[in-house]
Amino acid sequence: MNHKALLLAALTTVLGACSSFSPEPLRATGDMGVIIERATGSVQIINTSDKAPIGQVNDLGDLSHASIVFSRDERFAYVFGRDGGLSKIDMLTQSIDQRIIQSGNSIGGAISQDGSLVAVSNYSPGGVKVFDSETLELVADIPASQVFDPRSKAKKGSKVVGLVDAPGQKFVFSLFDSDEIWIADFSAGKEQAPKLTKFDQVGRQPYDALISSDGRYYIAGLFGEDGMALVDLWHPEKGSKKILPNYGKGEKKLPVYKMPHLEGWAIAGNYAFVPAVGQHKVLVIDLNSWQQVGSIDVHGQPVFVMARPDGRQVWVNFAFPNNDTLQVIDVEAQQVAHTLVPGKGVLHMEFTPRGEHLWVSVRDLNRVNIYDTTTFEVLEQFSAESPSGIFFTSRAHRIGL
Amino acid sequence: MNHKALLLAALTTVLGACSSFSPEPLRATGDMGVIIERATGSVQIINTSDKAPIGQVNDLGDLSHASIVFSRDERFAYVFGRDGGLSKIDMLTQSIDQRIIQSGNSIGGAISQDGSLVAVSNYSPGGVKVFDSETLELVADIPASQVFDPRSKAKKGSKVVGLVDAPGQKFVFSLFDSDEIWIADFSAGKEQAPKLTKFDQVGRQPYDALISSDGRYYIAGLFGEDGMALVDLWHPEKGSKKILPNYGKGEKKLPVYKMPHLEGWAIAGNYAFVPAVGQHKVLVIDLNSWQQVGSIDVHGQPVFVMARPDGRQVWVNFAFPNNDTLQVIDVEAQQVAHTLVPGKGVLHMEFTPRGEHLWVSVRDLNRVNIYDTTTFEVLEQFSAESPSGIFFTSRAHRIGL
Repeated sequence: MNHKALLLAALTTVLGACSSFSPEPLRATGDMGVIIERATGSVQIINTSDKAPIGQVNDLGDLSHASIVFSRDERFAYVFGRDGGLSKIDMLTQSIDQRIIQSGNSIGGAISQDGSLVAVSNYSPGGVKVFDSETLELVADIPASQVFDPRSKAKKGSKVVGLVDAPGQKFVFSLFDSDEIWIADFSAGKEQAPKLTKFDQVGRQPYDALISSDGRYYIAGLFGEDGMALVDLWHPEKGSKKILPNYGKGEKKLPVYKMPHLEGWAIAGNYAFVPAVGQHKVLVIDLNSWQQVGSIDVHGQPVFVMARPDGRQVWVNFAFPNNDTLQVIDVEAQQVAHTLVPGKGVLHMEFTPRGEHLWVSVRDLNRVNIYDTTTFEVLEQFSAESPSGIFFTSRAHRIGL
Repeated sequence: MNHKALLLAALTTVLGACSSFSPEPLRATGDMGVIIERATGSVQIINTSDKAPIGQVNDLGDLSHASIVFSRDERFAYVFGRDGGLSKIDMLTQSIDQRIIQSGNSIGGAISQDGSLVAVSNYSPGGVKVFDSETLELVADIPASQVFDPRSKAKKGSKVVGLVDAPGQKFVFSLFDSDEIWIADFSAGKEQAPKLTKFDQVGRQPYDALISSDGRYYIAGLFGEDGMALVDLWHPEKGSKKILPNYGKGEKKLPVYKMPHLEGWAIAGNYAFVPAVGQHKVLVIDLNSWQQVGSIDVHGQPVFVMARPDGRQVWVNFAFPNNDTLQVIDVEAQQVAHTLVPGKGVLHMEFTPRGEHLWVSVRDLNRVNIYDTTTFEVLEQFSAESPSGIFFTSRAHRIGL
């Protein structure tokens, strides 16, 4: 090869290498989010300013029931999959940073107050596992109470549900089979075993839970009886107590997978708006007294009841077969102000943090709708494969999310 | 030059050019913030996960009284300077993206609900100017009411104060010299003139204001009389009303620059914790009745009263000469639980969004302290030139901030 050709080859090689360093346009993370595509083990990465998807990540396993929390800087989304997969997705490179299979069957997760720990609540084996949020190394393994399982005729760990983070570097969760609520306190640091506080006989079969937005009250729904269990996390010494004794009473029993999701308690002002059980109603609870003070007739069995960030509206979706509809409750009037019909399979919804838009997954139409929450018009729509959960990065800054 | 040397020179040149494309490490924006350096016209860019500064931006004009809002994606910080400067800082490149001088004398600003508009409240000329948040092009110029100025013996526009954003794409602000509160509604889009709603005779000389975190109540402090003015933004047709008629009553009058900052109303549960005027007390206000229901003796004249995000503590700083101290109020007990002495010039403080840390500017020591809000220990300290306001990117997601 002559010298000119050699030079040209060298330059071409170097420039080829060079281009792999050409900078991607810089992107901030405050207006991003993730949408679960539940049938294909994938997620869409979205941008709320663009009102559009901007990327996709695949190979995330079984996402038929999945949830997400974000790292404190909003860089990473931790995806908790039904198959026990825990995937750490890099929002900026739109790729899997790390992925582990941490159990056989899992239902959800949480991130600690300071962002250093990610906890996962497992059905099988029953318990909670806690990981370093950066490396996904196992930090703690908290087996649940052993209970006799009639099917296998052996003892096994209780299924764990309703896992949330709480102030003071704590995780709080419920044990479905042993009727307990536990607090795991990691404030001594991840090198130490967590300090466990256990509440027993909280009520029969806690199946889900929520934490109030200030992180004070942990409330578990009971599947095996009417009412709910409450723990005041400022006063654990007072134990758990039952509230709303009539919640669920007197109606035909729903299967547990149709029970309302407690993420969907909408707190607006002094009231909580709560899905009734086995009735086509949203209940109004006074947060000072924990008494039901009203109810609002709605289109079907409510699943999620979500307050707009300014607390002026509460939006409701419904269980099959009425799952093509969304209703908007006017909080002041305590009645339905608007009904929308996006289509079959309205599974989940998420407000932009200042409340101007609502994103809605319409699974059976393979579509996501974006609504203006003042005019109720559809601003944008785009395709997604069997979309379910929608999670925005603003959750990184909120207790319990 | 022989061929080898030529090749070497060429490769060196190309690699040199190549390195200018080498990627900066990618960075998310959820854990970033800005600290005003009030004497040097500069700001520090900080990271709350690192608990450290990561950069500095200079040439921002007169920041002796400055504030900041963030773009919805957290990419940009808009710095409102006393000299009427409006600087758009890129958090990722840590440089000035754009800067304009938009008035002669300015006191603060806000960003609209959807992030498309930035408004600035001006003393001179009195009024509000609204800019496209991306280009800083002027979108609207809202002159304030003209009032007779005894000094110049001519009419001039009222000074505008207490500017906040509100749901529904609105800005709300007060007119100090004309005793008014105005709402500017931009929901028809930035091409249209805003719809103005004006409340007159709200009370004498509103000097500052705040909006409740749900964006419903706009509350202005009155300098020229006791009490405060309130507008229920859900019901503007009801006009403004006076609340807390005894607020400020009976004490020696403070100069206006020593009046408490209303940003610092701490809402915790059903109560607001409010700096008293000319008394060494924090007042406790019942938010349902707007009645004062208690008071807490504190170290000096409170300036900022800030609730930890979980509402369990309220931290207070003080005016000169007691400005070396911070006190922590236990919200449940409604009394001071802890006193800290960071040093002279404790000007401002900011909680990390889940509340585990508090960053404090200690101006006269040219230092920033970072506290653990559970143990009260100083986790880190670093140098800053006359630090004042501290603003974290999590404000991007909050109504009124």
